[in-house]
Amino acid sequence: MESALQVEARRLEQETLRELFARDPDRVQRDVQEIAGLRLDWTRQRLDAPAWEALFERAAASEVPEALRALFAGERVNTTEGRAALHTALRLPREARCEVGGEDVVPQVHAELDRVSDFVQRIHDGTHRGYSGRPIRRVVNIGIGGSDLGPRMVCRALAPHAQATAEGAPLAVQFVSNVDGAALSAVLREADPETTLFIVASKTFGTLETLTNARAARAWLLRHAPDQQAIAQHFVAVSTARDRVVDFGIDPDNMFGFWDWVGGRYSVWSTIGLSVALLLGMDGFRAFLGGAHAMDEHVRHAPVATNAAVRMALVDLWNQNLLGAQSRAVLPYDERLSLLPPYLQQAEMESLGKRVGLGGDVVPDDTGAVVWGAVGTDGQHAFFQLLHQGTRFIPAEFIGVARPAHDLPDQHPLLIANLIAQTEALALGRTEAEVRAEMAAAGQPPEVIEALAPHRTFPGNRPSTLILLEQLDPATLGALIALFEHKIYVLATLWGINAFDQWGVELGKQLAGQVLEDLQPGTPPAAHDPATTATLDWLRPRLPARS
Amino acid sequence: MESALQVEARRLEQETLRELFARDPDRVQRDVQEIAGLRLDWTRQRLDAPAWEALFERAAASEVPEALRALFAGERVNTTEGRAALHTALRLPREARCEVGGEDVVPQVHAELDRVSDFVQRIHDGTHRGYSGRPIRRVVNIGIGGSDLGPRMVCRALAPHAQATAEGAPLAVQFVSNVDGAALSAVLREADPETTLFIVASKTFGTLETLTNARAARAWLLRHAPDQQAIAQHFVAVSTARDRVVDFGIDPDNMFGFWDWVGGRYSVWSTIGLSVALLLGMDGFRAFLGGAHAMDEHVRHAPVATNAAVRMALVDLWNQNLLGAQSRAVLPYDERLSLLPPYLQQAEMESLGKRVGLGGDVVPDDTGAVVWGAVGTDGQHAFFQLLHQGTRFIPAEFIGVARPAHDLPDQHPLLIANLIAQTEALALGRTEAEVRAEMAAAGQPPEVIEALAPHRTFPGNRPSTLILLEQLDPATLGALIALFEHKIYVLATLWGINAFDQWGVELGKQLAGQVLEDLQPGTPPAAHDPATTATLDWLRPRLPARS
Repeated sequence: MESALQVEARRLEQETLRELFARDPDRVQRDVQEIAGLRLDWTRQRLDAPAWEALFERAAASEVPEALRALFAGERVNTTEGRAALHTALRLPREARCEVGGEDVVPQVHAELDRVSDFVQRIHDGTHRGYSGRPIRRVVNIGIGGSDLGPRMVCRALAPHAQATAEGAPLAVQFVSNVDGAALSAVLREADPETTLFIVASKTFGTLETLTNARAARAWLLRHAPDQQAIAQHFVAVSTARDRVVDFGIDPDNMFGFWDWVGGRYSVWSTIGLSVALLLGMDGFRAFLGGAHAMDEHVRHAPVATNAAVRMALVDLWNQNLLGAQSRAVLPYDERLSLLPPYLQQAEMESLGKRVGLGGDVVPDDTGAVVWGAVGTDGQHAFFQLLHQGTRFIPAEFIGVARPAHDLPDQHPLLIANLIAQTEALALGRTEAEVRAEMAAAGQPPEVIEALAPHRTFPGNRPSTLILLEQLDPATLGALIALFEHKIYVLATLWGINAFDQWGVELGKQLAGQVLEDLQPGTPPAAHDPATTATLDWLRPRLPARS
Repeated sequence: MESALQVEARRLEQETLRELFARDPDRVQRDVQEIAGLRLDWTRQRLDAPAWEALFERAAASEVPEALRALFAGERVNTTEGRAALHTALRLPREARCEVGGEDVVPQVHAELDRVSDFVQRIHDGTHRGYSGRPIRRVVNIGIGGSDLGPRMVCRALAPHAQATAEGAPLAVQFVSNVDGAALSAVLREADPETTLFIVASKTFGTLETLTNARAARAWLLRHAPDQQAIAQHFVAVSTARDRVVDFGIDPDNMFGFWDWVGGRYSVWSTIGLSVALLLGMDGFRAFLGGAHAMDEHVRHAPVATNAAVRMALVDLWNQNLLGAQSRAVLPYDERLSLLPPYLQQAEMESLGKRVGLGGDVVPDDTGAVVWGAVGTDGQHAFFQLLHQGTRFIPAEFIGVARPAHDLPDQHPLLIANLIAQTEALALGRTEAEVRAEMAAAGQPPEVIEALAPHRTFPGNRPSTLILLEQLDPATLGALIALFEHKIYVLATLWGINAFDQWGVELGKQLAGQVLEDLQPGTPPAAHDPATTATLDWLRPRLPARS
């Protein structure tokens, strides 16, 4: 039997966005919302009031309000790992309370934040120096996945807010993630061992990529430093594995902790954000947390129909499960947000790429979609052709910032005009009749019109969400990221899956260990499929000799 | 009626890759091919001999061999614009011939290459200097889309092959594309006007983003230089619009041309590759062209069944039109190839994102898919969860390089082991029975096994292509890119669309001009839909004042 949502979808398939704009004058009033420095605009989604109502009922049927309550209350919403998911507790103010298993976690969170604050102070004022007595000028964060993408994205986005140290300039903050040695090599080539600080970020302190890079960085340092003491001056850890950190040579006073209720892809708010705090200074980092907390308060208390996270999730559900989208394009029109697409790609695809539900059964609906995108206007010269005239249904999410952070004032209106024009063009398109009239008015001969009009027609009716920020400051970015986090959790609730585990990364890791052995020359290889065996045979003589 | 391909697809839907490996021992022999330094491995595609046969018949039915002949012969395969698409002529050796409209274009191509060679020589040896007499040390390419992504990707990939100038170090080569002033600002902040050369790359010399950035760069230069003469010393153009170039202040001797039969996204082989030639030196650039030519020769002469470009295209057709994929993940396991996903995203999505066929009718099949991806191993910690355990069917293309270009020898086998392990894990998966057995052997209690086994199960049967390069040098990269170009053309032929136009970028450009006017304070705005009007009203007071 058709669900209420399917009935609405079938009804709306008959209507275009042009028609919806004409007959539904309440769209702007109903579908634009301002929260915490963000202007969210869903008017270009293929929805009207009855469809929204059906979506709100779907949210109620999936007990979304109860799920949000459980999330904020610190219940074990990460069921397969038996853990809470309390990234929201990381941004609570000092005077708040949040109990996990009867214990208030807020004092621990702020104690660790105060340790970060103290360390930032010592680096910035030159109390903590390198082995030769020179102040730290460069910070290299070694981590991967959740220990990399969050701080990397935030540092790029907020670079104009960087705080100068006592040396008169902000720290140079860099990131190394890939086990490909090219990544670390490029950073070391321009780094000065006397003034470089490495942050080794790994919850378990056992992540293969991170430890391999950290060891290589340590060896590089020790080729220049007089003795092993230098390790304690140039390496700090963000981890929960004290013994391994100490074994590495790191001073436990320079180890910053977090908790098992912080998932990697939700961890930029924890001490994983140390590089952010070093770049922005503590005021900036606390403002970032404050902006996220403001969004938390909205999502926690707003009813379904005006809850921005719930509405974002319902829009994705509608586009994906009802209208058939398999991907969503994330299109920030701002260079500072160039890492937002990969950041959201991780946050969403790792959280929502699940086929088994909370009860252990394969879920009936499609879950997470592909998230991809790039900054505008570059994307317009790359893949927008397919968005406008391809055969695929691809909803887009446009993000823009009203105020730039550079001094080329004539360029910003051009950028913003392109952003607005794209949302308009995708929604409204251009009919073949309009193309023919325009070409005729331009004096084109009939045979040219005949040949080209179909190619110059735009079907339109392609939905997008438009998110505008007044400015890109720490608080507004915090609110934006928190909004996406909550959207992800609501979507997982709608689908009945766990947003917080990632069992799907296990098998590849396990097989890689075996393949690594089988790449050794002379070792009798384990049993693989014939293609893998042939590949290993081809590779073995071509790989470089190991040290 | 079911087509021959649909019959094959229905038959193979019953079989997994595990089963195919078991019953089809010829897979490695049949589905691995080595060409021009590349090892192409299609063994993990859900195909067998009869399915391949049906695909080859499909290629014959679409007259793929005839279409390839027409491409290389310089026929007007870009039908809507009435042009040839002769990027292959750009990489012909000097002694070859290629006629367009009765005229051999090879002498023109080599004359322009020789001019590039001469210019590279003068920059490298210090004959051409900046306004103060100091040699050029930094090159900034200002272009967008096809005038940016190609040289940007190649310069990143081949950076270890950069050639030192007479100054003892390679040129610093950078790229500015976005009209967002943040992009140019960041480059100018660290550039020295006395030693910086700007390449303005725009076929028409009228691309809004490029001209806006070029004018801002010119203003910056003139704030430092003694007079207007400096423009001729610090700006060169890659363009076909001589008058506009001269108006800008560029010496026509420093304008490098190309031809209307070179499409933007196929133009890195033309003088658009000037930045590549400046970085690598002419020998490197000519080796890059030579590698592409080697692939051209293969694609031009190989029969369908052993033609790598045709087989790649047929694999995409199979996965997309028969098995329902809407996207393809491109996953290079090499930092040097980090821009290959966005490069191919442009090349494929702009070429194949078409809904109208050559005859002007809407095509019956889905055409271009979304191309997205990121380097491994980073992707494993980001979105591989969804590839392994999500509900979407997403074919992947893995790319690896046997020899690294750094001196951390222990890291490379780890990288390669991960690459191989991922192809194996995606193809074979892990059954619930295997998971249960493994957990039991590890001593896990039955209730834990019961709860977790479904979440730790991998369905497998997810296809991938594996492309291995012996090394990443100019010739091999040239061959790789040429292979993808030809694949795109073959796919367009199979679908009956034009791979070389891009009418879909017009409407947004046109509307942006109108929106830009309507963002001006005080101007009575043109008629927009109510959502756009509301957005403009919100933005107008928040945008910075213009100069």
